Amino acid sequence: MRDPRFDILFQPLQIGPVVARNRFYQTPHCNGMGNLRPQAHAAMRGIKAEGGWAVVNTEHCSVHPSGDLMPEVLQMLWDDGDIPPLALMVEAVHEHGSLAGVQLAYPAYYNANRMTRDVPLGPMDRPVSGHHPVQVRAMDKSDIKALLCWWKAAAQRARKAGFDILNVDSNFSTIAFQFISPRNQRTDEYGGSLKNRVRLLKELIEVTREGGGDACAVSVRLIIDELFGTEGLRAAAEGIEVIGMLAELPDLWDLVVGTWADDSPTSRFAAENDHEPFMAGIKAVTTKPVVGVGRFTSPDTMASLVRRGVLDMIGAARPSIADPFLPKKIEEGRYEDIRECIGCNICVSSHFAMTNLRCTQNPTMGEEWRRGWHPERIAGKSSNATVLVIGGGPAGLECARALGERGYGVTLAERESRLGGRVTLEGELPGLREWLRVRDWRVTQIDKLANVGVYLESDLGVADILEFDADAVVLATGSQWRRDGIGRAAFKPLALSSGLPVFTPDDVMGGNIPSGRIIVYDDDHYYMGAVIAEKLAVAGNDVTLVTPAADVSSFTVNTLENIRTAKRLHERGVVMVTHKALVGTQDDQALFVDARTGAAEHREADALVLVTARLPRTELFTALTARIEERQAGRLRRVSCIGDCEAPAAIFAAVYSGHRFAQEFENDDPILRRERINLAA
Amino acid sequence: MRDPRFDILFQPLQIGPVVARNRFYQTPHCNGMGNLRPQAHAAMRGIKAEGGWAVVNTEHCSVHPSGDLMPEVLQMLWDDGDIPPLALMVEAVHEHGSLAGVQLAYPAYYNANRMTRDVPLGPMDRPVSGHHPVQVRAMDKSDIKALLCWWKAAAQRARKAGFDILNVDSNFSTIAFQFISPRNQRTDEYGGSLKNRVRLLKELIEVTREGGGDACAVSVRLIIDELFGTEGLRAAAEGIEVIGMLAELPDLWDLVVGTWADDSPTSRFAAENDHEPFMAGIKAVTTKPVVGVGRFTSPDTMASLVRRGVLDMIGAARPSIADPFLPKKIEEGRYEDIRECIGCNICVSSHFAMTNLRCTQNPTMGEEWRRGWHPERIAGKSSNATVLVIGGGPAGLECARALGERGYGVTLAERESRLGGRVTLEGELPGLREWLRVRDWRVTQIDKLANVGVYLESDLGVADILEFDADAVVLATGSQWRRDGIGRAAFKPLALSSGLPVFTPDDVMGGNIPSGRIIVYDDDHYYMGAVIAEKLAVAGNDVTLVTPAADVSSFTVNTLENIRTAKRLHERGVVMVTHKALVGTQDDQALFVDARTGAAEHREADALVLVTARLPRTELFTALTARIEERQAGRLRRVSCIGDCEAPAAIFAAVYSGHRFAQEFENDDPILRRERINLAA
Repeated sequence: MRDPRFDILFQPLQIGPVVARNRFYQTPHCNGMGNLRPQAHAAMRGIKAEGGWAVVNTEHCSVHPSGDLMPEVLQMLWDDGDIPPLALMVEAVHEHGSLAGVQLAYPAYYNANRMTRDVPLGPMDRPVSGHHPVQVRAMDKSDIKALLCWWKAAAQRARKAGFDILNVDSNFSTIAFQFISPRNQRTDEYGGSLKNRVRLLKELIEVTREGGGDACAVSVRLIIDELFGTEGLRAAAEGIEVIGMLAELPDLWDLVVGTWADDSPTSRFAAENDHEPFMAGIKAVTTKPVVGVGRFTSPDTMASLVRRGVLDMIGAARPSIADPFLPKKIEEGRYEDIRECIGCNICVSSHFAMTNLRCTQNPTMGEEWRRGWHPERIAGKSSNATVLVIGGGPAGLECARALGERGYGVTLAERESRLGGRVTLEGELPGLREWLRVRDWRVTQIDKLANVGVYLESDLGVADILEFDADAVVLATGSQWRRDGIGRAAFKPLALSSGLPVFTPDDVMGGNIPSGRIIVYDDDHYYMGAVIAEKLAVAGNDVTLVTPAADVSSFTVNTLENIRTAKRLHERGVVMVTHKALVGTQDDQALFVDARTGAAEHREADALVLVTARLPRTELFTALTARIEERQAGRLRRVSCIGDCEAPAAIFAAVYSGHRFAQEFENDDPILRRERINLAA
Repeated sequence: MRDPRFDILFQPLQIGPVVARNRFYQTPHCNGMGNLRPQAHAAMRGIKAEGGWAVVNTEHCSVHPSGDLMPEVLQMLWDDGDIPPLALMVEAVHEHGSLAGVQLAYPAYYNANRMTRDVPLGPMDRPVSGHHPVQVRAMDKSDIKALLCWWKAAAQRARKAGFDILNVDSNFSTIAFQFISPRNQRTDEYGGSLKNRVRLLKELIEVTREGGGDACAVSVRLIIDELFGTEGLRAAAEGIEVIGMLAELPDLWDLVVGTWADDSPTSRFAAENDHEPFMAGIKAVTTKPVVGVGRFTSPDTMASLVRRGVLDMIGAARPSIADPFLPKKIEEGRYEDIRECIGCNICVSSHFAMTNLRCTQNPTMGEEWRRGWHPERIAGKSSNATVLVIGGGPAGLECARALGERGYGVTLAERESRLGGRVTLEGELPGLREWLRVRDWRVTQIDKLANVGVYLESDLGVADILEFDADAVVLATGSQWRRDGIGRAAFKPLALSSGLPVFTPDDVMGGNIPSGRIIVYDDDHYYMGAVIAEKLAVAGNDVTLVTPAADVSSFTVNTLENIRTAKRLHERGVVMVTHKALVGTQDDQALFVDARTGAAEHREADALVLVTARLPRTELFTALTARIEERQAGRLRRVSCIGDCEAPAAIFAAVYSGHRFAQEFENDDPILRRERINLAA
């Protein structure tokens, strides 16, 4: 089964008073369910434990109402009423023999306390980091005393909830770290020297220990390098020194680099194991187990890190979302079954959308409780119906795969000579290569299913489809980029002159590539505009990216890519112009108006690339529906669209759409549970 | 008591099968409680009824999961489980003899269906209006049929919940209006001619009537002018025609103008009753009662509109938030007791913050259930303690007023010769005059309280305060704008040369006004930077507003003022520069870096106005605390800070802070209820 070189990942590990059964540590991560959807949250964490993660943590769990991050969906232990929803998670984790950890936290500079309306506290008098008109009050000694009391009370509640590991969060936006950072400019014994700045973390560890008692382990999640140059904490300068100072105080060190955007970069900007350089020297200053992250999906990388003594446990958030059963699959030697994280950070966007966690690779994520979906199990077929799936992009592949897993006879017909659809095309664009994993995992799985037949270069028409005589036809024919300018800013086709040639992402991906002075007009706002601009700039063109939004790639604020995108475009020489809506072209001029003021502006160019919106490819749907209405479709009663050919969206939505079709096929009453407020309060 | 000229406002009105007891109609409004905090929501609506609003509506209530606006906090009637939380509101409204209305709605182009993950539906294939990577699917006939079924089922549930009036929402972002708008480019019988475009609204009214049965009235909330030029629906062109076509079909018409930002402009941009010009001619085409809004606070304006036959009922959202008892106060002739809305739209910002509704004028708003606060009643005093309040700004005035209402002996000492503090100063800035109502209402109320003494030009020092010998001292000494550049972008003082004179908003408000080429640097992000820029530009200077944010006044997205602010600055000739962080000055140059890329940029100027952050005025607190610690403070054991001198924030927070102190004075265990998830689901 398993190669012995991975045995090291399955050695138990003592963490203070508790024992982790293996080396897989699900680090805290947001999930959009939290305290607001506790049953959904518990089910999701339980599946992580079932999949083999020896330690399963909560997300940020606030210890007091004055550390209020609402409306972000997180956890809190403000009073005893917060115990039962967390106890639900602990039970789910314990049921599968794993340890449950809670990330005790008190935010600083980040929380406007919008719900509780308490005054936010922090090291100094400064505004909160968002744009809410709220300032933090500098804590005095009595505030620090109060914080330690609140924290201890929260630790006691965590113990009552049944947690095994109490984590002291010293992440970027937490009080502990904001005291440690050299940007803390206090002049009392909590500021100045490193010893002074670390004082609060030390005291927090102590009260956590007191609150947790002998049965709970205490871990610390710490930033070791702020990535803020000489003005921030640096691993080499003070980061490792902090660990040295508190070396044996906690039972485990869980180490982080920079802000969330640094800690969880997308695959466009960072490869697996990008944090290792910061971990050098840490094991020399503490005997306690060390956990680190790096979007680990390769069992070899993981085993090597443990073997080389860099880490004791493999921390993972995103890889555990893409595949909750990653540890089990390594344990059983089923490496090729690992659904590898593609590093797109759609999971992170769920947090900002404050809705259940979602994942491009794992369409069951966030749906465990409300829809009863499981990442590794699906109900068997209800009949011997056969299904014809047209189109082998992300929706079609997932639909065929999941229907196949259910046992249905499935035929997948792809027009092109290779599978993957848009994923295959987009995977060639700068930085998007790992996205091919969406295709590759599904192709690998389909290959194992004898009941799924795949036919390439099969451009089926209406007659072919009807002749095929399947019980159900599913269209996954995708979409094409619009050439008329319709998007968010324009509701009807723009007047476009022939003097300024127009291109779309389909042209560029298909090899029809403009040159010279190019305007990329981005009214799509996700990655495509920037990625096309990058590709054209790298090819030596003079590229200007224009958008009606206030930011380039504005949706990528939600995937933590926004600043990195702007930096990269700047490095590639792309000029960025914001707040300008395209209203048409005249000769070789693109005509814009300021999206706020209406002021007009013209720009000369050799080519205009329109990245605005897409049109679903509905020709087959329209034609088949007409045949059905005319009763000229044989046995066929209904034809379904999934993915982009139903409604163009991101890849995660296409995968989900295909999966949902398969889950709900021949199931007229799929469950959809909702969490409700207790009105008897 | 009441002047007979207002009697017309208290005549009952038949609305289909139900009767409104007077002419006050609380239009639907968001509140950040909704389905997520139903007990808080019900209590708030109940207080509106208690205050005399004859009709009290919910906010947007979605009829189906495919019209999902989560995480925005609204209502839904997706299944029978949604009935009990709404029934709670109906009971609270009925308890006070008012009618309860529900705003049945199905959004279009606005909903990304982030929670339910259903494909959004709309008139055409187009992206959703936010930047989420989601497109709407154009509805076909079967989708329209399904929508009518869903809508009818929701109407039936609304009836079960006990609602008296079922509203068919045809507001900007709803399906009904997006079909009516000429921007609907459909080519079937639901597009093209006005009759075709109105078809869906007509059908929705019909199924609402069917679902509601004989006992429920049916109202329509309709945009009559889209304010989108010739490409949108215009009152004169087609808006009134729509009403004429459906004239007698509903039992009441509730009319709206433009998007939310147009319908609810702030007092910076629009005066009371700004919609009246759009209402001309409506009463000629329907015999049914007509409701309109216009941030009405003047009883004379209201009575005149009814008398002149423009409106039959006075619609209000914001004025009913600022004063839930507005109708009762007019009824009882207590006009000067009306807490007039200042038109700041902080209420709207609560919706975007997804937290309980708040109001600058009414600090009890949103706190009715969780804290047990009431806008017109407060617990009596618990002792004969006396309180000295230092500072007569918004926090000090509200604190003194509320403590006075409780019966405490209060002395309010103000250093200046007039009350109001920052409100008085800011009220002189362009567009902020109505904000003076914050001061004026409180001064009027304090004048009525014999137990509150007000002393102007009383600049009390530590010795004076101790000599005064009050039982409690409350500091409301406000804040001052920083002169060192510290704000969100800079954590430590910037290096500022003497070659470029630095000003702050305090200088400008105090009459020390720069001239020539002025850079206003806005790292505050609310109104102050823009308002100062406007003032300086109007005075004839050459003004550039620079901000590290992506938008000028970026927080004002939440108060619906962002686009209007940019337009006004542009009109006044202010140049707007975004994404640039100030890093210092050198000679007469301001030095900036691009907040995304770090690229440097210099700008020459004659003056630099820093609008970054504020410093609380804590001198008295520090000195008094030292005396208490040294046991040199006589009877004084504790000194408290409220408002900006505790932590600088917006005016609504200062009023709240003062009120909260008064509510919790001598009350060690104030209630704070939280809504919880039912774990037995």
